[in-house]
Amino acid sequence: MNSQTSTGKMLDNTMAHELDSLFKPRSIAIIGASSKELSIGNVIIKNLVHYNYTGKIYPINLKESEIRNIKAYPTIFDVPDEIDLAHIIIPSKFVPQIIEDCGKKGIKSVIINSAGFSEMGEEGVALQNEFLAKAKEYGVRIFGPNCQGIINADPQFNAYCDFTFTFPKPGSISIVALSGGVGAFIMQSLFDLDIGMRMYASNGNACDISISEVVTYYGEDEGTKAIILYTEGFRNPREFIAAANRVSKQKPILAMKSGRTEEGAKAAASHTGSLAGVDIATELIFEKIGILSFDNEEEMCQAAMAFSTQPIPKGNKVGIITNTGGPAVIATDELISAGLQLPNLSTKAIQKLKETQLPEASIGNPIDVVATGGAIHFRSALDVLMEEEQIDCIYINFVTAPFTDTDEVARNIVAVNKLRRKPMVCNFMTNMSMERYQTTAKILKDGGVPCYSFPTTAAKALGSLYKFHKIQSRDIGKAKTFPDIDKAKVEKIISRNTFKKNDTSGEPSSNGNFLSSADVYEILGAYGIAVANWRMVSTTDEAVKAANEIGFPVVVKAEAKAIVHKSDMGGVVINLKSASEVIAAIDEMKLTFGSSENLQFLVQKFLPGGRELIVGVAAQPELEPLIMFGLGGVFVEILKDVVFKLSPLTELEADEMLSSIKASKLLDGVRGQKGVNKARVIEILLRISQLVNDFPQIQEMDLNPIMAFEDKTIAVDARIKI
Amino acid sequence: MNSQTSTGKMLDNTMAHELDSLFKPRSIAIIGASSKELSIGNVIIKNLVHYNYTGKIYPINLKESEIRNIKAYPTIFDVPDEIDLAHIIIPSKFVPQIIEDCGKKGIKSVIINSAGFSEMGEEGVALQNEFLAKAKEYGVRIFGPNCQGIINADPQFNAYCDFTFTFPKPGSISIVALSGGVGAFIMQSLFDLDIGMRMYASNGNACDISISEVVTYYGEDEGTKAIILYTEGFRNPREFIAAANRVSKQKPILAMKSGRTEEGAKAAASHTGSLAGVDIATELIFEKIGILSFDNEEEMCQAAMAFSTQPIPKGNKVGIITNTGGPAVIATDELISAGLQLPNLSTKAIQKLKETQLPEASIGNPIDVVATGGAIHFRSALDVLMEEEQIDCIYINFVTAPFTDTDEVARNIVAVNKLRRKPMVCNFMTNMSMERYQTTAKILKDGGVPCYSFPTTAAKALGSLYKFHKIQSRDIGKAKTFPDIDKAKVEKIISRNTFKKNDTSGEPSSNGNFLSSADVYEILGAYGIAVANWRMVSTTDEAVKAANEIGFPVVVKAEAKAIVHKSDMGGVVINLKSASEVIAAIDEMKLTFGSSENLQFLVQKFLPGGRELIVGVAAQPELEPLIMFGLGGVFVEILKDVVFKLSPLTELEADEMLSSIKASKLLDGVRGQKGVNKARVIEILLRISQLVNDFPQIQEMDLNPIMAFEDKTIAVDARIKI
Repeated sequence: MNSQTSTGKMLDNTMAHELDSLFKPRSIAIIGASSKELSIGNVIIKNLVHYNYTGKIYPINLKESEIRNIKAYPTIFDVPDEIDLAHIIIPSKFVPQIIEDCGKKGIKSVIINSAGFSEMGEEGVALQNEFLAKAKEYGVRIFGPNCQGIINADPQFNAYCDFTFTFPKPGSISIVALSGGVGAFIMQSLFDLDIGMRMYASNGNACDISISEVVTYYGEDEGTKAIILYTEGFRNPREFIAAANRVSKQKPILAMKSGRTEEGAKAAASHTGSLAGVDIATELIFEKIGILSFDNEEEMCQAAMAFSTQPIPKGNKVGIITNTGGPAVIATDELISAGLQLPNLSTKAIQKLKETQLPEASIGNPIDVVATGGAIHFRSALDVLMEEEQIDCIYINFVTAPFTDTDEVARNIVAVNKLRRKPMVCNFMTNMSMERYQTTAKILKDGGVPCYSFPTTAAKALGSLYKFHKIQSRDIGKAKTFPDIDKAKVEKIISRNTFKKNDTSGEPSSNGNFLSSADVYEILGAYGIAVANWRMVSTTDEAVKAANEIGFPVVVKAEAKAIVHKSDMGGVVINLKSASEVIAAIDEMKLTFGSSENLQFLVQKFLPGGRELIVGVAAQPELEPLIMFGLGGVFVEILKDVVFKLSPLTELEADEMLSSIKASKLLDGVRGQKGVNKARVIEILLRISQLVNDFPQIQEMDLNPIMAFEDKTIAVDARIKI
Repeated sequence: MNSQTSTGKMLDNTMAHELDSLFKPRSIAIIGASSKELSIGNVIIKNLVHYNYTGKIYPINLKESEIRNIKAYPTIFDVPDEIDLAHIIIPSKFVPQIIEDCGKKGIKSVIINSAGFSEMGEEGVALQNEFLAKAKEYGVRIFGPNCQGIINADPQFNAYCDFTFTFPKPGSISIVALSGGVGAFIMQSLFDLDIGMRMYASNGNACDISISEVVTYYGEDEGTKAIILYTEGFRNPREFIAAANRVSKQKPILAMKSGRTEEGAKAAASHTGSLAGVDIATELIFEKIGILSFDNEEEMCQAAMAFSTQPIPKGNKVGIITNTGGPAVIATDELISAGLQLPNLSTKAIQKLKETQLPEASIGNPIDVVATGGAIHFRSALDVLMEEEQIDCIYINFVTAPFTDTDEVARNIVAVNKLRRKPMVCNFMTNMSMERYQTTAKILKDGGVPCYSFPTTAAKALGSLYKFHKIQSRDIGKAKTFPDIDKAKVEKIISRNTFKKNDTSGEPSSNGNFLSSADVYEILGAYGIAVANWRMVSTTDEAVKAANEIGFPVVVKAEAKAIVHKSDMGGVVINLKSASEVIAAIDEMKLTFGSSENLQFLVQKFLPGGRELIVGVAAQPELEPLIMFGLGGVFVEILKDVVFKLSPLTELEADEMLSSIKASKLLDGVRGQKGVNKARVIEILLRISQLVNDFPQIQEMDLNPIMAFEDKTIAVDARIKI
């Protein structure tokens, strides 16, 4: 057993990182090792041996003296050496005791494969908390429970601490997946694509070691060139943002978050027993951090193949080389859809191609070297595109025409690829059951050319490389804050409202209620958000006086706790042009709502003729508030033409919000209508962002509408719920 | 050579169909047969032999007496037997003579592989016309030129009349592709998926035998269960509609049309040298006929796998069985996106599952039999879903857990699948490099279970089956026509306008001009389309008189040939409430446009307060006009929220137009605004459809806006270009 005899330099390495004991274990105990074939306690040992694990394997079993020809020990205390990592595959009720034992033995990391914890209801949660307490006490890190485990394909370790069945070649892509099922088929897909893999982790209930920690670990691992992440949501999104934000600056993170439909989220909840409902927050987190997001796991794996070997393009200009017409048309469609462009070639390039290509070739972009074109024609086309300054990346269609020396074509593609001057992908159309073309395929693969079987698939992969370039070149900057705000004032208002409900306890708490209009407008004013001139009054006389001060026309709104949907109740009357109209409106309201002392009236300047905007805020558990922007009225109500971002907003992000609604052109003015002052709208978004980040007590907030004019932008109605 | 000795019953069959000589040839001559390896004239013979062609092969070569061990003949006249089909692989200039020879020899079909015809400019077109004339003279049908050829995988024929390199097993999917490159990789994809294929045709320049003819042939072929079609547009769309309309009622047609971006269309044009620009018409043709349209060729092939073995679901209710959590979440997302629903299970079903599943199984929809679940658990879940009346189809996630007898699971899935009660797809997650799982895969494949490697892919395939159910159950009905129209009147107006330009020649011709408002409104009136009351006048006095007759408020529009963009020139003044306002408006217009005798004024009832609608018409070469519908103003200009259909419209189609714009809820009325009378809007669409189909001379038409009210719907501005 080489796994039993190997020592070497590995043991001399100190463990630089806490998680090294998990991903680079020098010795592994299998607690619950079994001689029963196909049991997890047997499969894991089999996998470690099969994968040529370079460390020591210690099966732990009370009765057996040997499992799979490896000496077994009754307990971990009987193992004469140090143990870095333990697998636990015993019934859940015994786990707390075993964790304590592991602590006593000095085991640093534990993978709990056993199920029967938080995913199984209250009793399981209690059990999980019990072993977690023990783990904390002894400084044991827990991976799982109810999980697969980890794999490290680095030949220095060959650590296959998992019961799955795919044995990856060493590569540069590392995977972390909430779901073992998904993680396994992603790993399998990379295997089928012959890409190779670096590390793998699927942490099930994830009670201790989190996806964020794993992502950080992969980020620091030099051998990891790109990371694939699958999740159904985040328990601690702030931790993830902090971790992934650092990593995504260094290497691409390709991610997929499922549960995007309500039904999918329901299935996810019943699967992991914990996570979010339908949330748009995860996608916004990905966007903010610069994570490449996928909604199709096959596309994600196909893209990973390109990331594993190709450089990132410097722009969106693609050159196409093809030896068959139709697939170039399909590829063009997809490349254009992905935001790439096909520039014309330079006169020099065209001249060169005319000299080197067959007479029937089509000179342009795409360059069609035609099916009878051979290696020299492909090579000349490649060389020309490499020299073209305006070309950032290359798409190749290569059908293995029977009358062509396809190996020689492949060797020439590889030769150019090895220069790594520009990224390339190849749609390689062939019959892989024929030995002749297997050879050609091998030349391409060994030469690091990402090969695909469909033009759309290859084009999508190149599109992903370009998308990553876009993400990387987008510096969102820092969240913008304004100094001219009165935070203390807002603190006072919120604290006053917060104590209302629980004033006996003296503890602040959210009252789940809407603030009064007066409070709302005071808060907005304190953060420099212009509000239409207003007065809060109690009598008709005061109302007329207020209207005169503000100037006609005015709006009058009935104001009382119970009245939330004001416009539905006739509680708002707009465009009052005179004192008599104000009096009539207030009399009507008194009739409708009763003349209680609780009834007040908000008199406010009426501002017609602007563009109605809406800004909304929604607080989120464990995460900064979401901010929504859109045009008011039918645009939000019927067309749902709104955009969300995760606060705190930067200036770039606020600007992107304006430009990314579908009706954004309306902000510029059309059909004789005037545009709005976009800088003012952006400022409002940024001030709102600052407000709600300063005051996480704010649960919901709507400014609807904000009236935007050519010069000014003024909120005319707003609600805040704390 | 069995291909030389085989005779059998084939020869006794009379050829029932003209294209039988192409697809079921009893003997094939290769004109241009070559002893040079890798030349097309050699590869085709090699392929025929390799594929065990059951008919006779006659290489034609002036010098060689034998090619690939088959007796060769100097000319076709030296061949002692009848020849059904000839391949032509000689330089283009010799083709017309050879076609004449083929005619004289009585050859019924010819595949011209040679290039150098219409794709090569004028000279090539002339050559193509020359051989076509000969072909017509002798009744020879031409496939190609510049094409691959055909394949018939029916073991009765094994006709591989093509130079490609994929040798499909017999199956039930037939392929027709404009592009040989695309056709070949689709065929290869079916081969890789191990589906099998029935017939294949890629007809290059398609100068005679068209895609439509091939589709019809496949439609009549009993062995073809589904058809895959790839095109970049249609030369003769009417022929295609007629052909495909019949076929799509009998069997699914899965289609992809590329060139959907402007750049893609450009690439397509340079590829096939002929077809349409960016057209939306092809998608509309697919929609009208009931063709399943794809924009991703890989998805199309994956869907074909499901169609090749599965029945069509009777509804959109899916039951999910899974033995792993995450992939079920991903599948749920995709299934829901495809319009499927996951109904709750009946109490009886839940009871049954509780009795039969493992305690840790999750009972519901999805049913999670968990990774440790075995054959009996899968079987019980399958049986339960088969009994559930509200379940129409089944999605299975099957990961080959190492501790499960996966063969037995597969056998049980197959047993249920064989009953063909409900369609199913299986996302089969395994490591195919392991022999153990190859066996499991073979059981599933041999049992006709469509297997996929990704949950999204499997879910998409099931989604396609459901989409086809929807298409099949959508009976659009017949185009609606109204009897209360005055066709003669419109004929007169159009003919009067048509002769204007060319009155010396006496020949009618389109003048490419807009009709006068008077003519436009007369035409609309003649087809029962309500127009706001109008008078055409020349003087101020007449205008005032007209306004009084119509009733204020009115609109006045300046009317002269040169004034097309009226509103841009100040040529329209709305909401004139009195005679003096009318006089002032007309005086202003005379100043602006000059008081020529060509200047007239349209006085029309002003109708504010309705919902603005827009209906547009665009004529198309070789096809019925497109009809566009949308809301006016920003909805069309900024949001492009419009829908197109191919006329003539049926009532269902007109109704679908109203409901398929994004802002369709506005037609029902929202926010206190009144809705419109939808029946009246539908009637206008149908009357416009009838008008433009009665008069193909109409090149463009816009009714913008149509004012729609709760009761009436009235066109207030319209343009017609002939």
